Order: sequence, then structure tokens, then C-alpha cells
Amino acid sequence: MIGEFLQADLEEIIARKAWDELRDALSELDPPDVAEILTDLPAADTGVIFRVLTRERAAAAFSYLPVDEQEELIRSLSLEQTTGLVAEMTPDDRARLLDELPADVTRRLLAALSPEELKATRDLLGYPPGTAGRYMTPEYVAVRPDMTAAEALRHVKRTGRGKETLAIVYVVDAGGRLVEDVRLGALVMADDSVSVADIEDRPLVSIPAAASGDDVVAAFERYDRVALPVVDADGKMLGIITADDVLEFSQRKATAEMQKLGGSEALDRPYFEVGFFEMLKKRGGWLAALFLGETLTATAMGRYESEIAKAAVVALFVPLIISSGGNSGSQATSILIRSLALQEVKLADWWRVFRKELSTSLVLGTFLGAVGFCRVSLWYALGWKDYDGHPFLIAATVWASLVGVVTFGSLVGSMLPFLLRKVGLDPATASAPFVATLVDVTGLVIYFTVASMILKGTLL
Amino acid sequence: MIGEFLQADLEEIIARKAWDELRDALSELDPPDVAEILTDLPAADTGVIFRVLTRERAAAAFSYLPVDEQEELIRSLSLEQTTGLVAEMTPDDRARLLDELPADVTRRLLAALSPEELKATRDLLGYPPGTAGRYMTPEYVAVRPDMTAAEALRHVKRTGRGKETLAIVYVVDAGGRLVEDVRLGALVMADDSVSVADIEDRPLVSIPAAASGDDVVAAFERYDRVALPVVDADGKMLGIITADDVLEFSQRKATAEMQKLGGSEALDRPYFEVGFFEMLKKRGGWLAALFLGETLTATAMGRYESEIAKAAVVALFVPLIISSGGNSGSQATSILIRSLALQEVKLADWWRVFRKELSTSLVLGTFLGAVGFCRVSLWYALGWKDYDGHPFLIAATVWASLVGVVTFGSLVGSMLPFLLRKVGLDPATASAPFVATLVDVTGLVIYFTVASMILKGTLL
Repeated sequence: MIGEFLQADLEEIIARKAWDELRDALSELDPPDVAEILTDLPAADTGVIFRVLTRERAAAAFSYLPVDEQEELIRSLSLEQTTGLVAEMTPDDRARLLDELPADVTRRLLAALSPEELKATRDLLGYPPGTAGRYMTPEYVAVRPDMTAAEALRHVKRTGRGKETLAIVYVVDAGGRLVEDVRLGALVMADDSVSVADIEDRPLVSIPAAASGDDVVAAFERYDRVALPVVDADGKMLGIITADDVLEFSQRKATAEMQKLGGSEALDRPYFEVGFFEMLKKRGGWLAALFLGETLTATAMGRYESEIAKAAVVALFVPLIISSGGNSGSQATSILIRSLALQEVKLADWWRVFRKELSTSLVLGTFLGAVGFCRVSLWYALGWKDYDGHPFLIAATVWASLVGVVTFGSLVGSMLPFLLRKVGLDPATASAPFVATLVDVTGLVIYFTVASMILKGTLL
Repeated sequence: MIGEFLQADLEEIIARKAWDELRDALSELDPPDVAEILTDLPAADTGVIFRVLTRERAAAAFSYLPVDEQEELIRSLSLEQTTGLVAEMTPDDRARLLDELPADVTRRLLAALSPEELKATRDLLGYPPGTAGRYMTPEYVAVRPDMTAAEALRHVKRTGRGKETLAIVYVVDAGGRLVEDVRLGALVMADDSVSVADIEDRPLVSIPAAASGDDVVAAFERYDRVALPVVDADGKMLGIITADDVLEFSQRKATAEMQKLGGSEALDRPYFEVGFFEMLKKRGGWLAALFLGETLTATAMGRYESEIAKAAVVALFVPLIISSGGNSGSQATSILIRSLALQEVKLADWWRVFRKELSTSLVLGTFLGAVGFCRVSLWYALGWKDYDGHPFLIAATVWASLVGVVTFGSLVGSMLPFLLRKVGLDPATASAPFVATLVDVTGLVIYFTVASMILKGTLL
């Protein structure tokens, strides 16, 4: 949304050291747009921009920067400037930043926070990464159950400044337990004298602090809320999570799942921001592991070297057969990783999935086999290939192997995500290339076993 | 969230025809939970539940059902009941339902709507599917710029009932143009006499009605809002989109992308809800297309049949070499599909991506080749395999081919999403198996060409 024009302008203003003009130019921009400018400007100029912005606007722009750029900036600003920035961040953004920084920087920054800010941040850092506790902000407005609507509104007016959202007001009893949540809209619409606990609004939905990110997304999708309260095991109110944070989480998670499905590690940031060596590491690791797994195909093929030497025609169909197994496995695995992530399918459903995949893949394998049979027969009939005089035996070998390989591929591809979840790993680790590698070796064994049965006494 | 216990209970209550008891049991549930019960109950019982619920609660539960179950219910309820349900839905949910229904049912339902409801629905249906216009709801609260905060609050009290969200109030001038948006919280916090146009709140961000779903998600992620206004080309206010709808959209989109990346069509609904034949169709189509593409490997291998007959050892490395190309292509394609979807990478960046992929994959290919070289040499040194007496020539062939195949795979995998977007298709069509198939055939040609150059005069 920021044109090249504006950016060139800013660089020119900075070059002229016209600070007042710079302040004016920046004052018209939204914090996310300031953050975008900071990302694009040469590193030397970013410090200047931060010095010109007011402390609040600087903090707002800062929270929109990617964590690695936040880290870089922290190194270039003075300690005082940094602690100012970090203190102004919302506690959830601050906890996530401190999570990523080297321990010594984190310690220095925590030491510089006020006791109140320190407590809020420490509380958030106490929950395991990826749980609801990490994504919540303790800045919400609470009212007592015995307040009337008018009293509650006055209370919002008095205490609302600086809270992440006022859209929902939380009714909390003297013991800190969450009793009800009331949309500010419902509070405004209610009669002045009605008690807040009696305001007719939607049923209360809350999230336990230990809930996983997936659970949080599922709750938001299910109940269509803009914010949900987070409670501890005793039902005590801890904080709120807002829908925009959940959107960010779900987008990041989907990106990581896609990248892992494609067979690399999650990049964790935009493509162009991943450096050369980091990209090599994130992709090379899996590529090498898959390569080593795949060398087993050379070993498996080696066992059948004499058969290949006898009838080279058998080798021609190797890529076709094993890739079909890989493809059906890749379909099954991507469908089930996502179904597990969306909680449409539970761990306990594995047997139902097994049966569904078995019947589906038997039909698909038979169908592909039939196509393969026709292909071989047609090439023979057209005189393009003589298949050493045994086209129908070769065609039958292709058909029977495809039924086996496609079925095996679908079953491996669909069960692997369950197995990974069962042993406590992320189902998304089951990438398409990983499944293909598993299936390739077995596919070769299936193919050559079928071939030696059918072609025994003729070609082999 | 609904235990098996409760569901069994309900079935038993229905069997006893104890309607009052059923009404009581249902009254304690949230609409999404009622929807879940409806999904799980035998079809014959769902009609009963709808008759027991109040019209408003029935409509709320109805909007949480998947579209295919909504369609089924519409067929089983009377026209009067149905129009009641549909009339109570929010216009955006209604437009999406009508989109999916057969044309005659849509026409009948539209005919039964009130002129007001009809207009709101028609307006939404006027925007192309997948654009912001389809996801907005025209139910928001607007105030005039010359109102004071107190007047605006009174206006909200008067007109707010039944609006999707009151969290943000929109300041619209006499010409219908959107001037400003003010959070209800800021309105409550403001002094009574201040003009709404002067309330200090966040800068105005709006979405054009023609914006794509991806643009909408990007705007929400960028500006961290719970709702954004939608405007036409003249800046006139049309409706609002809320963050929970965007979350739903982004989750559905990510699911479709994953399934397509895995090489099947998008399933469009939960795994267990996809019927046997539908599953066959969604997976069989691509599987057959990939199979036909992959038969080209048999043709390519056929061209080298005499080489394989001369030295079967050459065939052993075929799966290893071509799968490495497929794996690197799959990595590149999944990373770039997602980067394009998130708008981190633009169409115009293709040349920058090409160069980055070229350098990355040359290094990765060289590295994998070195691993392959060592593997072959080691097996020879250990006396496990004699490679027809030419281990180092074979090892060199594997190395050189891997550099070529991995580089080719990454370039095809990374450029294909750009090409698809360029010709107006969805980049997500470039599935991992599709890239692997493209790369397999070329991989074979690269491998056998390298082999005949290096092994000429010795093995070949």
C-alpha cells in the first residue's frame, strides 16, 4: 500500500536531515505502513525513524515488524530506547518477542520493565509455547456481577483506556472466576438499571489456558466470536484472545503445514527474507534424509539386477509403478494431515479411515491398472513396441502391481499422520516426498514379486 | 463438545415424543452445538428438532450446518418453515447458501423473502464469488458525522438490535460515503459533547467490494481489526466483514491448497462427509492424469532399453535420481504457492525467485551428488557391489545427473506457480505429484544422456 514514490521521498528527506518534515510525513501513516517502510529502508535509516516517532507510535510500528528485524533494531537502539519500545508493546506481543530473543537480551529487557509489566509478561511466558496462554493478553475490562448496566458502562469509561479491545466486557466474581461475557453493544443497548449478569447475550464460551493453537482456532471457527476469554483450571479469568491474533496464527500454521507437506522444514518467514544458507539448511536436511531413504531403492533394484538383465523391458515400468504409489500416498497424507489439524478426524478414527482408504484405493488401483493394461496392449497392437513377444503378460503384471502399489500407498499415506500424532509428533511431518520414499521401496518389491510370478517361465 | 451421552438422551426423548422435555434440553445449548447434534442425528429426527426450536434459534443453528445438510433439510421441511429459516439468516450466510442451491430452489426462496431481505441478498449475489462483496453483511450501525458522541450512542441504542456486530460504528455522510469508523469502546470513552468525526481512533482502513479473498485476509492480518468496512469505487459504504468470517475463509482456503498440493481436487468438506464415489472422482481424476503423464517415463525408458540390456546396473539408480528431482521440485512448489497466496512474493518477482532457486539448487544438487558418490564408492570398497568393475564412472554419473536433476526440479517447481498465475489459473494447481511427474521424464533423459557420455566405451 506504500508506493515506491513515498519511500524514495522519505529517503530523500532523511538525506537532507529534515527531521520536522520527516515527522510530518510519518504522522499521516498507519503503524503497519510505518513498519513496511522500516522493512524496506536501508538499516542505517531505521534508527532515525524510530527517534522521530512518538514513543507510542514507535512501539505500535515496532510490533508489526518481523521478529528478526525487531531483534536487529534492538541491537542498534540504545537500551533506554529499547526498553521504552518493549514496555509499550501489548503483553502478548512482548512475550512472543522475548521468546525469540537470545536469553541475555531477554534478561536485560525484563530487568528494565516496571513490576506490573514484568508480571504480565512473566505470566504469559509461564505457559508452554503454542498454547492459548501465550496468545492471550491480560488487558481486558472486567466488571462485577452485581453492577447494573449503567454502572458497568461508567466502569468501562474509567478503566478502558489502553485495553486491547473493549468490544467485550467480562463479568468476573470476587474470586476472580469468569461468570459471563457481555458484548459492549449489548451493554449499551440494555436498560440502565438491569444487572450485568442478567443481560441476555450469547452463551459463555471460554478457552482453557493449556488449549493448543488448533483448539483455539477450532473454538473461534465454531462460535464465530471476535474475542474469547482464557481461563485456568478453576475457571479463573486470565486474559482474552482476539480473532485477529487467531487469524495470524492460523495463517502461519497453514504456511508451515504446506511447506512441511512439500518436504522442507517450515521457513518461518517470507521467502525473500530467508538467507541463502538458512534456505540450504531448511531444504537440504530433508532432501538429504529423503535421498538416503531413497538409496534403498538402488539396493532393492540391485536384488533384481539379474531379472533386469534377462528382460530389460521389465525395468521400463519401474518409474510408472512406483510414482503411482507415491501419488496416491501423497493425496491421502495431505487430506488426513489437514483433517487432523482441523479436528474433523480424531486419533480414534484411524480404523474408520483405514477402511475408507482401503475400499477407495482398491477401486482407484484397479482403475489405474486398467488404464495401464490398455496402454501396453495398445502400443503392442499399433506395433510400436513388441514387449519381447509377451505384451499381455507384461500388461497383467502392470495391472496387478498397480492395484497393490496404489492400495499400499494410500494406506501408508493415510496411517502415517495418525502414527505420528500417536507418538506425540506433528502429523504434518509426514510430507508427500517422505510418503513417496516409503512407498517407492515397497513398490519396487511388490512390482518385481508380481513380475517374477507372472513372467516366470516366459521372460524371467 | 457434545458428549455421546447427551445425544443418546435426545434420541430417547424423541422416541418418547416428549416434546416439552426436548425443548428444555435444547434450550441449554448453543446454536453450534445444536448444529452438531443435527449433523449426528438420523435424518428423520432433524425435522422434529427444527419444529421444537424457536424460529430465531432454529435459524441460528441452521447457519452453522454445512451447505449440503442445509440443502437436505430444506427438502424435508415445508416451504413456509424453510423461508422462515432463510429469512432469519444474516444476508451474507444467506447469499452463500443460495449460491450453492439448485437454481429452482433459490428462485423459490428468493420469491418468499420480504422486499428488504430480498434487496440485501440480491446485492450480495451481485458480486462475483470469492470477492469481498460476497462475504460482507449489510447489517452495521451507521451514524452521521455531525452527531455528538452522546447522540451517536443513543442512535446505536435505537438501531442496534439484530446487527451482526456493534463493536464498530461507521460514520457515513449524507451521500453514503464512509468518513470514519469508531470503535464502540472509543465512543463510550469519549466525552458526551465531542463530535463523532473528531473522536481519536485508529486510521480508517476499508476494503473495495471487488477485492479478492486473499486481499481481505491480507488486510485483516496487516491492520489487526475485528471488522473492516467494504466500500464501492466511489467510497460509498456497502457493508462490513468480520474477522471470524475471514478466519473461516482462510482456513477453508488453506485446506483446499493443501489438498491440491497433495495432488487431489479440493474436497470442499470434512473427510467423513465425502461419499465413496465423490472421493473416487476427486482423487481418481488427478491420479489418472498423473498416471498418463507418467506413462511417458515408460516411453523415455524404452528409448534406452538397449543401454539397460547392456548394463542393467544403470537401471538401478533410476528411482533414486528421478525421485530427488521430484523432491526438490515439491519443496520449491509448496514454498512458492504459499508465498504467492500470502502475497509475500508477487508475479513480477519471478526472475528474482529464478535466480535464488538456481543458486540454491545448484548447491543442493552438488551436495546430494556428493552423498550419492560416496554411497556408490563405499558399497564398492566394502565389496557389497562390483558395479561391473566401474564404480567411479557410475558414481560420477550419479553425481553429475543429480546436479542436473535437482536444479531442473527446483526451477520447474518454482516457476510453475508463476506460470499458472500468469495464465490466470490458481498457482495451487501445481501439485507436488504434478511437478514430480514433469520432472521424472526430463530426469530420465538427463540421467541417460549423462550416463551415455560418461560410460561410453566402457559399460555402454
